[in-house]
Amino acid sequence: MPTLAVAGAYLHNKTVVEELLRRRLPDWSIVRPGDAGAREACVAVCWGQPHDTWQQLPDVRMVHSIGAGVDGLVRDPGLPDVPICRVIDQAQAQRLTEYVLWGTLTYHRGFDIAARNQRALLWQRPANRAASEVVVGVMGLGEIGAHMAKTLAAHGYSVRGWSRSARSLEGIETFAGAEGLGAFLDGVEVLICVLPLTDETEGILSRDLFNRLTPGAKLIHVGRGPHFVEADVLEALESGQLGGVLVDVFPVEPLPADNALWRHPLVMVTPHMAAVMPMPDVVSQIAENCERLLAGEPLLRTVERASGY
Amino acid sequence: MPTLAVAGAYLHNKTVVEELLRRRLPDWSIVRPGDAGAREACVAVCWGQPHDTWQQLPDVRMVHSIGAGVDGLVRDPGLPDVPICRVIDQAQAQRLTEYVLWGTLTYHRGFDIAARNQRALLWQRPANRAASEVVVGVMGLGEIGAHMAKTLAAHGYSVRGWSRSARSLEGIETFAGAEGLGAFLDGVEVLICVLPLTDETEGILSRDLFNRLTPGAKLIHVGRGPHFVEADVLEALESGQLGGVLVDVFPVEPLPADNALWRHPLVMVTPHMAAVMPMPDVVSQIAENCERLLAGEPLLRTVERASGY
Repeated sequence: MPTLAVAGAYLHNKTVVEELLRRRLPDWSIVRPGDAGAREACVAVCWGQPHDTWQQLPDVRMVHSIGAGVDGLVRDPGLPDVPICRVIDQAQAQRLTEYVLWGTLTYHRGFDIAARNQRALLWQRPANRAASEVVVGVMGLGEIGAHMAKTLAAHGYSVRGWSRSARSLEGIETFAGAEGLGAFLDGVEVLICVLPLTDETEGILSRDLFNRLTPGAKLIHVGRGPHFVEADVLEALESGQLGGVLVDVFPVEPLPADNALWRHPLVMVTPHMAAVMPMPDVVSQIAENCERLLAGEPLLRTVERASGY
Repeated sequence: MPTLAVAGAYLHNKTVVEELLRRRLPDWSIVRPGDAGAREACVAVCWGQPHDTWQQLPDVRMVHSIGAGVDGLVRDPGLPDVPICRVIDQAQAQRLTEYVLWGTLTYHRGFDIAARNQRALLWQRPANRAASEVVVGVMGLGEIGAHMAKTLAAHGYSVRGWSRSARSLEGIETFAGAEGLGAFLDGVEVLICVLPLTDETEGILSRDLFNRLTPGAKLIHVGRGPHFVEADVLEALESGQLGGVLVDVFPVEPLPADNALWRHPLVMVTPHMAAVMPMPDVVSQIAENCERLLAGEPLLRTVERASGY
């Protein structure tokens, strides 16, 4: 009986995932690392796997992420040299775009100010500007970032984009690489981060970057937790260099209750909700690859380990 | 010297308006009702004019609203039988659409819940639904309501519209008149009101209407203050028939500090900010009609008094 091991400290609904996998793969044994028979597992399904996972799973032939992001895998030094696959939600670009459009409208139209004023019983209109006067910068121009940039431009915002390697997007001014970053940031009032997490992008949302934005700029972060240097964000909010932050992803999730972001008046914390793929769809994509592995067929949605996405 | 009288209790920036009018119409005398020479005024510029305005301005030949809405004029029993004009902001449909799109995204994606959860330090994902599963109803299908309906439909929402007389909009299911209202409301989860204020629509946002919506429905109100029956709204929030209200317009503005809406946890109060026309543009449209009046040329943006818009 083929065996699949589910490994993930960040997987809150582990029993739900396991139950769905058992139903979808009735001929498989679904275990956790350390369980009886787990050493025979040929598939590891991961999300925030502990460091000792791999020594407990010596026979793994495929590692499957339970999400779209695979940084937790490709950056794990113990990861065996086997194919890595991920899940891809067709609707994910739309869901993430809804999130960043909401954030952009919030800052452009001053709904954040209106909410604070309501608590103070203060009737005072926020500044009234046309969307075209607001410069929005999108960092990350993969499928999702490009969809965001085009949607925001269609709403009338002045949109520019930045990516590691040069991209061309109709109606969007694009910049690339370290040498293009300064020009990209200069004048940006709403910065959206949807970058993948790599060694190059870790910690990119830092003091140096914030200082190149328009003073009082807003940050909307839907990339990965480690992009974000929390101490620098708090400092930039304190100095006024950042005027507000909307953040959905954190290095440790759930965000611990004692974290200062929860209570900061200029920070909106959301619980990694920007794009949530329905778990039955996730399990269906994993099961499909399990069947392909056994049948010796090409795996789907594999990840290029060197680029990290 | 032709004389223009500025009359408006709700006009907070009256001196700014007067200064702009003086600059734009240097040959005119700009006064207020009761001032020396005001009885000779041939033009009245109004927003929330007191009831005794008209006896103080016996020679008025044109009444100009300082906003797009003219309900405060056509419903004033003392209004003289002269042409009524209004200002029209070309960008108004876009600004109002930004507002209602923000509100719809707020309720669809649960940003209102996320904000409440943040205050309670609670990490909990709101329900995750596709836009197509959310039925949005737009009441009022004039130029602005039609723009809203089309934009929301382009975002994937299931949009339907209602108006006094039948309208046809591509991709939008439309309903009309009192006989179409029940079918329109049945199943609506997010109701947007952008109706003009008339004798027929005053008090339309009432208990009877709320009871026909899906339980827990949300209301986004950018029409006019008197559409909204405050006691019924508070009762529907209490019973859960309404799950949230975003409201920008009130019978008395600024909304008094002791009004219960300010403090209700399910109500977002905004300070009539959905569409604010820049005052220089307002004054320019008024001045243009003043010049046309003196020259005997046809007035622009006149209002049909019987329909009220």
